[in-house]
Amino acid sequence: MRLYKEMTPDEIREELSGLMKAYRQASALDLKLNMMRGKPAKDQLDLSEGLLHVLENGDECVTDGIETRNYGVPEGIPSARKLFGELLGMPAKNVLVGGNSDLNMIYDTFVRGMLFGLHEGSTPWVQELDRKFLCPSPGYDRHFGIAQQMGFELICVDMLPTGPDMDQVEKLICDPSIKGMFCVPKYSNPTGITYADETVRRIAAMHPAAENFLLVWDNAYVVHDLYEKADHLLNLFDECIKQGTEDMMFTYTSTSKISFPGAGVAAMGMSDANIAWHFKLMSMQSIGPNKVNQLRHMRFLPDVEAVRVHMLKHAELLRPKFEAVLKELDEQIAATGTGTYCRPRGGYFISLDVWNGCAKRVLDLLAAIGVQMTPAGSTYPYKKDPYDRNIRIAPTFITIEELVPAMRLLCLCVRIAACEKRLAQ
Amino acid sequence: MRLYKEMTPDEIREELSGLMKAYRQASALDLKLNMMRGKPAKDQLDLSEGLLHVLENGDECVTDGIETRNYGVPEGIPSARKLFGELLGMPAKNVLVGGNSDLNMIYDTFVRGMLFGLHEGSTPWVQELDRKFLCPSPGYDRHFGIAQQMGFELICVDMLPTGPDMDQVEKLICDPSIKGMFCVPKYSNPTGITYADETVRRIAAMHPAAENFLLVWDNAYVVHDLYEKADHLLNLFDECIKQGTEDMMFTYTSTSKISFPGAGVAAMGMSDANIAWHFKLMSMQSIGPNKVNQLRHMRFLPDVEAVRVHMLKHAELLRPKFEAVLKELDEQIAATGTGTYCRPRGGYFISLDVWNGCAKRVLDLLAAIGVQMTPAGSTYPYKKDPYDRNIRIAPTFITIEELVPAMRLLCLCVRIAACEKRLAQ
Repeated sequence: MRLYKEMTPDEIREELSGLMKAYRQASALDLKLNMMRGKPAKDQLDLSEGLLHVLENGDECVTDGIETRNYGVPEGIPSARKLFGELLGMPAKNVLVGGNSDLNMIYDTFVRGMLFGLHEGSTPWVQELDRKFLCPSPGYDRHFGIAQQMGFELICVDMLPTGPDMDQVEKLICDPSIKGMFCVPKYSNPTGITYADETVRRIAAMHPAAENFLLVWDNAYVVHDLYEKADHLLNLFDECIKQGTEDMMFTYTSTSKISFPGAGVAAMGMSDANIAWHFKLMSMQSIGPNKVNQLRHMRFLPDVEAVRVHMLKHAELLRPKFEAVLKELDEQIAATGTGTYCRPRGGYFISLDVWNGCAKRVLDLLAAIGVQMTPAGSTYPYKKDPYDRNIRIAPTFITIEELVPAMRLLCLCVRIAACEKRLAQ
Repeated sequence: MRLYKEMTPDEIREELSGLMKAYRQASALDLKLNMMRGKPAKDQLDLSEGLLHVLENGDECVTDGIETRNYGVPEGIPSARKLFGELLGMPAKNVLVGGNSDLNMIYDTFVRGMLFGLHEGSTPWVQELDRKFLCPSPGYDRHFGIAQQMGFELICVDMLPTGPDMDQVEKLICDPSIKGMFCVPKYSNPTGITYADETVRRIAAMHPAAENFLLVWDNAYVVHDLYEKADHLLNLFDECIKQGTEDMMFTYTSTSKISFPGAGVAAMGMSDANIAWHFKLMSMQSIGPNKVNQLRHMRFLPDVEAVRVHMLKHAELLRPKFEAVLKELDEQIAATGTGTYCRPRGGYFISLDVWNGCAKRVLDLLAAIGVQMTPAGSTYPYKKDPYDRNIRIAPTFITIEELVPAMRLLCLCVRIAACEKRLAQ
């Protein structure tokens, strides 16, 4: 295979003719393949079957003197706060453990920022009409959706292989209408990169003009390594403490992709000042989370080492899928120069940038032959990819038997769109 | 025993002297009794032990084609929506089933009312500075706490044996700054009364001046009967539909006091228009509740009949406690005319009104000899009982062996305070 940009128009026409023949053949197969679902497959869920019967009788439901079946303990059970603290790199006292969804904890943080002030004494965001939120893109659509619903203008920041473009960020935060930034710092959704140490240090050293600036540090893939030699993420909390900026950072994680997305445990970490303020506000909201489920998790995965061993089993199942994706991309996309992509060492996605202006065409071609992908633009604010180039590949839920043909068709369509673009120029 | 108001000052002095002797004896016993906790006792929690092992393996986690262990289904699993619909007296399509806490669902309703508008097109409450909420009192302190946190002025409405004083309510809702009302319509917290049919009809017929009026219908004790012949509550949803007022009502319940307060399932019911609007807003908040726990509940309590049979077991455990409380009140309080109380046929509380100005004195006397009660005023907005008369008795968590002496001491202190008041007049 050759780089398309080095081929002559006639060569491109011939190439396209061959690709279209393959496309028509695929079209006849009446396929139904889906690479859009960023969720664990059944074999991964089965890894946590023990969670279902780790608590069998009532007397086992007492822990640290707490009757988990009854009311109370809105901060979460002590053992869970300790474990999540270790995962998040914070003391247990700075961690609240909740229910099933860390997205809900992020949402609730926004609500408190809107109505009561992000910090004690902060101006509630509702009182400021001009509000913007930084969205490193491509990024996580559900993050963007929360800020959009809360009435923030979404501001794109470029994602680099080292994390958000900090040159852009450092300029933007001088504007007091910039009220925060989303980060998925490890195995970022969807690019799969982990923020470089220098990026983390520059984030910790930020002094935003807005006093009510919310740094959402969504460490969703904190232990979601595909390889024993995992990406290393610098501890933001420690760096922030060195800089005296720990009050801007709020960190989140959950067991959604460790145990069950439909029955997991989520946690958030905050500075001393913020936990006092947010916990006080939260105490009006609920008498407590599902503590029995927290205890189940602590019995099933009692410590960081147990989590590590458990995640190796996920990696065993996921690695072949990620490698199959990369093999196809290497053979067809790198070889033709029709796109660029990272090689994630963890997380749930592989992000492919095709030639500018081609992403929507690729996804339309795929949809027409029965291959479903995350809709074009989804990884950008307002679901609009300014370059029309980003495609999010979710290889986890699909079986490997379906993944390989789906990837071949994706690459085929990327090449078709690239040929078309060459010919249109 | 005689009515205190009929006794002469000398007789009262003699009575008080005897009571104080008994009080000093009790004081020497170094007691630690607690009648403030409105939560189930351990023997009640044990009734739901089956819930802990009703789902044992992964394949059992699929229901109605839904893999409950995975992401999705933010509206709750169909079987749970159906059951909660039957409990709430609404079609399944009008019900959302969530996580552990119905208080959280009430809180979230307030948040949406504040930020986005209670109905589609409604004025968000944050845009209206003058906001008030009707609080039938005595009532539930956590309800009042939510409205207070959200910046509503809390307006007392008298609770009658038939429910809120509707003459007061009907006048008050002509003021557009009145934005809602709290109701615990069955076995009301704390008075234990169930709203009369006429009260429910008058509530359904309300046409508040505020277009964004939130009627919180917290049916927390919907199946929490102590006797086979239970109180009957008219179906508000049906009545509202007759009146065309169904958009103002939001109803809630949970399994907190059916299964586990620390690992239950909550639900809310709304009109067609409201469920469309609130579900749309909610879809940004979370990818879904703990569905495995929902399914556990459906396996353990598959239908209304199973719930009914299960609640009979709770009643067996609770009835002797309620009857012990009433026996002491009858013998000491009714006999001396020092207080009034209802005779709840369900729920979690018995509410005692002592003579005006005496509640705080009674609770201080009790605290000094080691009997803890819900603090005076807790059942009123701002924790201020304008009459200083209401005492909430929570007989469920305490053992009956401790309940009887605790109640004797409560009655002793009520009589002491009454004597003191007589002598001070």
